[in-house]
Amino acid sequence: MNGQKRIRDYHIHIGEMAAGERNSITDVPGVQVGHCTVAAGEVQSGVTAVLPADGNLFSSKVMAAVSVFNGFGKSMGLMQIEELGTIETPILLTNTLCVGGVTQALVHATLEENRAIENPIRTVNPLVLECNDYYLNDIQKCAIGSYHVREALGNLSVEFAEGSVGAGRGMSCYRLQGGIGSASRRMELDGRTCHLGSLVLTNMGLTKELLVDGKAIGKTIAERMAADNQPDCGSIIVILGCDIPLTERQLQRIANRAIVGISRTGSHLAHGSGEVAVAFSTQNRVAHVKQDNCSIASIQMLFEPDMDLLFRAAIESVEEAILNSMITAERVVGVSGHSRPLLKEFAALL
Amino acid sequence: MNGQKRIRDYHIHIGEMAAGERNSITDVPGVQVGHCTVAAGEVQSGVTAVLPADGNLFSSKVMAAVSVFNGFGKSMGLMQIEELGTIETPILLTNTLCVGGVTQALVHATLEENRAIENPIRTVNPLVLECNDYYLNDIQKCAIGSYHVREALGNLSVEFAEGSVGAGRGMSCYRLQGGIGSASRRMELDGRTCHLGSLVLTNMGLTKELLVDGKAIGKTIAERMAADNQPDCGSIIVILGCDIPLTERQLQRIANRAIVGISRTGSHLAHGSGEVAVAFSTQNRVAHVKQDNCSIASIQMLFEPDMDLLFRAAIESVEEAILNSMITAERVVGVSGHSRPLLKEFAALL
Amino acid sequence: MNGQKRIRDYHIHIGEMAAGERNSITDVPGVQVGHCTVAAGEVQSGVTAVLPADGNLFSSKVMAAVSVFNGFGKSMGLMQIEELGTIETPILLTNTLCVGGVTQALVHATLEENRAIENPIRTVNPLVLECNDYYLNDIQKCAIGSYHVREALGNLSVEFAEGSVGAGRGMSCYRLQGGIGSASRRMELDGRTCHLGSLVLTNMGLTKELLVDGKAIGKTIAERMAADNQPDCGSIIVILGCDIPLTERQLQRIANRAIVGISRTGSHLAHGSGEVAVAFSTQNRVAHVKQDNCSIASIQMLFEPDMDLLFRAAIESVEEAILNSMITAERVVGVSGHSRPLLKEFAALL
Amino acid sequence: MNGQKRIRDYHIHIGEMAAGERNSITDVPGVQVGHCTVAAGEVQSGVTAVLPADGNLFSSKVMAAVSVFNGFGKSMGLMQIEELGTIETPILLTNTLCVGGVTQALVHATLEENRAIENPIRTVNPLVLECNDYYLNDIQKCAIGSYHVREALGNLSVEFAEGSVGAGRGMSCYRLQGGIGSASRRMELDGRTCHLGSLVLTNMGLTKELLVDGKAIGKTIAERMAADNQPDCGSIIVILGCDIPLTERQLQRIANRAIVGISRTGSHLAHGSGEVAVAFSTQNRVAHVKQDNCSIASIQMLFEPDMDLLFRAAIESVEEAILNSMITAERVVGVSGHSRPLLKEFAALL
Repeated sequence: MNGQKRIRDYHIHIGEMAAGERNSITDVPGVQVGHCTVAAGEVQSGVTAVLPADGNLFSSKVMAAVSVFNGFGKSMGLMQIEELGTIETPILLTNTLCVGGVTQALVHATLEENRAIENPIRTVNPLVLECNDYYLNDIQKCAIGSYHVREALGNLSVEFAEGSVGAGRGMSCYRLQGGIGSASRRMELDGRTCHLGSLVLTNMGLTKELLVDGKAIGKTIAERMAADNQPDCGSIIVILGCDIPLTERQLQRIANRAIVGISRTGSHLAHGSGEVAVAFSTQNRVAHVKQDNCSIASIQMLFEPDMDLLFRAAIESVEEAILNSMITAERVVGVSGHSRPLLKEFAALL
Repeated sequence: MNGQKRIRDYHIHIGEMAAGERNSITDVPGVQVGHCTVAAGEVQSGVTAVLPADGNLFSSKVMAAVSVFNGFGKSMGLMQIEELGTIETPILLTNTLCVGGVTQALVHATLEENRAIENPIRTVNPLVLECNDYYLNDIQKCAIGSYHVREALGNLSVEFAEGSVGAGRGMSCYRLQGGIGSASRRMELDGRTCHLGSLVLTNMGLTKELLVDGKAIGKTIAERMAADNQPDCGSIIVILGCDIPLTERQLQRIANRAIVGISRTGSHLAHGSGEVAVAFSTQNRVAHVKQDNCSIASIQMLFEPDMDLLFRAAIESVEEAILNSMITAERVVGVSGHSRPLLKEFAALL
Repeated sequence: MNGQKRIRDYHIHIGEMAAGERNSITDVPGVQVGHCTVAAGEVQSGVTAVLPADGNLFSSKVMAAVSVFNGFGKSMGLMQIEELGTIETPILLTNTLCVGGVTQALVHATLEENRAIENPIRTVNPLVLECNDYYLNDIQKCAIGSYHVREALGNLSVEFAEGSVGAGRGMSCYRLQGGIGSASRRMELDGRTCHLGSLVLTNMGLTKELLVDGKAIGKTIAERMAADNQPDCGSIIVILGCDIPLTERQLQRIANRAIVGISRTGSHLAHGSGEVAVAFSTQNRVAHVKQDNCSIASIQMLFEPDMDLLFRAAIESVEEAILNSMITAERVVGVSGHSRPLLKEFAALL
Repeated sequence: MNGQKRIRDYHIHIGEMAAGERNSITDVPGVQVGHCTVAAGEVQSGVTAVLPADGNLFSSKVMAAVSVFNGFGKSMGLMQIEELGTIETPILLTNTLCVGGVTQALVHATLEENRAIENPIRTVNPLVLECNDYYLNDIQKCAIGSYHVREALGNLSVEFAEGSVGAGRGMSCYRLQGGIGSASRRMELDGRTCHLGSLVLTNMGLTKELLVDGKAIGKTIAERMAADNQPDCGSIIVILGCDIPLTERQLQRIANRAIVGISRTGSHLAHGSGEVAVAFSTQNRVAHVKQDNCSIASIQMLFEPDMDLLFRAAIESVEEAILNSMITAERVVGVSGHSRPLLKEFAALL
């Protein structure tokens, strides 16, 4: 995707299921991703927007669920998803100290977009997730705000760059350059081709822990790098999307599996590393206003034992998305002249 | 119901919604209740069975959710309901120290009943809830077991007694005689008459706390009773059933409202008082084996703002069911000659 | 407090425990409250700040826990409290659509205040809670921001106004004027006088539901008011503080009891009404940096059955704080000329 | 331990931390393990007891927490641990359909043991966990009961066998013989040597998924075995013990990391595979009756960032314990003549 060399191009194939055409969360019809990257000296950060479905999200919400593995983080909007089971805005990713400003910008954008639907709109649940890019970005500057949110939303597309772009600009994964990655899996259900895809913002782990498809190449890389006694205080955000009809409980079971994909790449879920997963389905859209004056609406759900296929798709795609975020990353020189080595510099070890 | 004088017969009307015909959880079509009461000197206990729907529950499960307000209790089967969102056996209520034996008996009964369906059956999630009747029952005797489970299941009916019967035999509510109570509410949805009903096993509270429809009659009753410095170490189990199609998340929101009904009767949710609610719907049955070789099945859900009507129905019916459990109770003389006063002895205060 | 006539001044005494000297959350030593009220035509809103303890909160955090009864809300900072069990900033209350800007302002204020402690500070968990004041406030204007946060923080004091002030300015409680209320309870533990206090931001309920100490005066008030078919879409935020040493689990049990106090005032926990409680203790402060190079630190906890006393204190103080928020409120005329009747206009019914 | 050849004896060393002397959960002082194994034709099952600390557990409880990754299971006793944060009985492991009888037996054993302490004892929270051994054991016979519980409790010792013993007798792990395994990690805290150990009951996974220290040997083994289209419907129970003082919240964070150790061995957390972890500390014992008439007791907790060391210890010991459960297992021929290959038959692949 986007001409970047991804982990498959290095002959690493995660799992056994087939990927979608783009091997990206945008294989799920309706999903789009857009970045706004800020690369300006000591400020190396940005926003990444994930549009979970087409159409007006506020008037036709997507069903969703959340799984928090390690709640050391500052996410906005999760509580309401847990209660109501829906997402009603694009999902925004940014850095830790800019969640407030980005939230406010998303509120304004949603108010504007929905003037025609409910006038005046009284409440909206902005969904904003974050990782802490302080090592490469001068995070105290809180440089990301309204302008960057609009840029990211303006750049929404089924094609998008991975690696050190958007919210991923200043992120470190296993102390190498991290960022944004994506992958997908394809499956047949009742004769229909369906997709489950993931997008990750990666910022966790110690170098020595890194596993690539089970191979402990992190140990070798760590030996070649300068000693580093810093604790792991990164994080990872996982967005899982699919076009398979599920209930909120089933979506939560899928979100719960993200941790397996993360674990496969070596992370020890450190104290300082917030891990949050959000899963949504583009099916079973939930209307904001009553339709045809009916209280009861028809939806669909999956036969529970068939969830196994989705669990596998989630795990495989998260593991691959993490590797994609690393292998596509380019070198970033940021605050205090900091930079991270790139996984592709160690491609011979793969 | 059953010829007993209930709280309405004392001109106490809880809330504003209309009750179902029986004002009972069995107003929900398919729901039945059966008791086995043991009243033998120092043993004053029993089993109450709630059948949540007709047909074979194991092969056609009902959707359900759980809300634990105070987890000081020994319930069996809740973890799987939270994960899979279904009930696959009758719900059994008994005393605290007999949960193990009653669970084993329910497993045996389910294995037997389902020999034809899946042979051999390999797993079943028995649902057994309890309160502690030690004040009136010689609970150390662990007198309730397989025989009583079969009796209770054999007595299933839409008509059933309330008060000091079944699992309620030895229970104390606000230090008066407690036990089993039920109530229901009726509503129209899309032109169809629906019911939401509750059944409670009441064993919580201090006398001075008791409120009847907001009236603090417990204070007056407490003044007339001997001083009692025992802490509140009772519990309450709430079963909520309805014939309205809901998702598991929506069912959990209903279960969460049970606590409001409990609070209205005066309880302070004491440290020692386990409060557990289970909510189920008879709609959206979940098949144990795949139907027509299809992975995707159609279900229905309620327009979310319309949940308000169900919340009110749940709260009103729980408050009324608690009062019914007390006002219908008869005097029980149990272990060490203990007995509790009856609410109906204080009917003049109502 | 503050010369306002509170519910006790109307001879309504909630519960049986004694109140602290101020009958306020500020009876807990170290706790302070400050408001910034915006009353400017169509903008009727504000910020209320609760300082949970003295000293630098970031370097010496307070233990805390969260209870979400109805997660229809946009709170910021709860996830990390659930994971790490600490609060490290003042608690800010505001309106729903201003959470982003207020969060960003709190981040900036914390960065500034802590330049000396950890330079540069890399992460902070801002705690911002909200209710929706759209009926009286032109919420789309998103008028509350950095200036108001600093004002509220600058006004911190043990004395503070209640009613239609600060974040409470535009709030409606049981469709009467709501706002900020507080109350406390005093108890002896091991020979020491301790306090548990609550502060509430009230914005929930239908008039007909209102109970004052069990008395259904809401029904009478509703008959005198114009018909109103709007659903309940308010919310209530509850802050509980104490100077009793507890573990995070024990704090959560206390937060869980807030719902009982709310229920006692008549609310049905409507679909649209977010209910969130945060409980903290000023004891067992948690150091941000390791002390004396020791991994193990001593703390204290309460003998579990003694929690009953705290549960009662929490329930009583929440019920009374809600009534204080209403009875102290003054008339607010806001957007579209809207205003709410005052509870004190119906004082004869109390 | 016990003369069995463990995974280390095959030169597989998991992680980087040092193990305790026995490399077993019994390296935590006070912890003991006992089995009762039933190997009688079609009945191949048993009970394993874990004593979490010395002394009378009911009068001096251990602090504990629970993490449920996949709640497809029938565990008993978890709800109360979540509420009160303590374990007050030995932990028993058995097969799925015998949880009721084993629970009842544990209640009886606890009543007997505590006649002197609280007479009569009124309540006890039995802790019983399970996996489903139907492939090798005629589970419908429900053969495990009171006799076997007493045997297992009578066999408690710091030395115990691993593999196809006790509750592990009929278990299948990655479709090879599974069972009971253990491991531990040692660390220095404030100059004191501490231990964190794990014990697992393994019954999950498909052969093709098995990873041994990152090496995908399961794929090779699967190719040599007969085709097998059965879904994964096993489970894994993880018990984590340590002698480090922690609060209940900190214990839950440790329990949460069990899933990483499980993931490292290849499991996809299948729909049908219940995963439950319980973590306890032998420090901070919680008294059943008030001590010295004091409400406030002193306990200790760990400086939060130091949790990283315990997280690593938990993850490493769980991964190694799973491998120990497999490599020590002996061939079991059970119901319908079923048996599972042994991991040690594939030792050349390690």
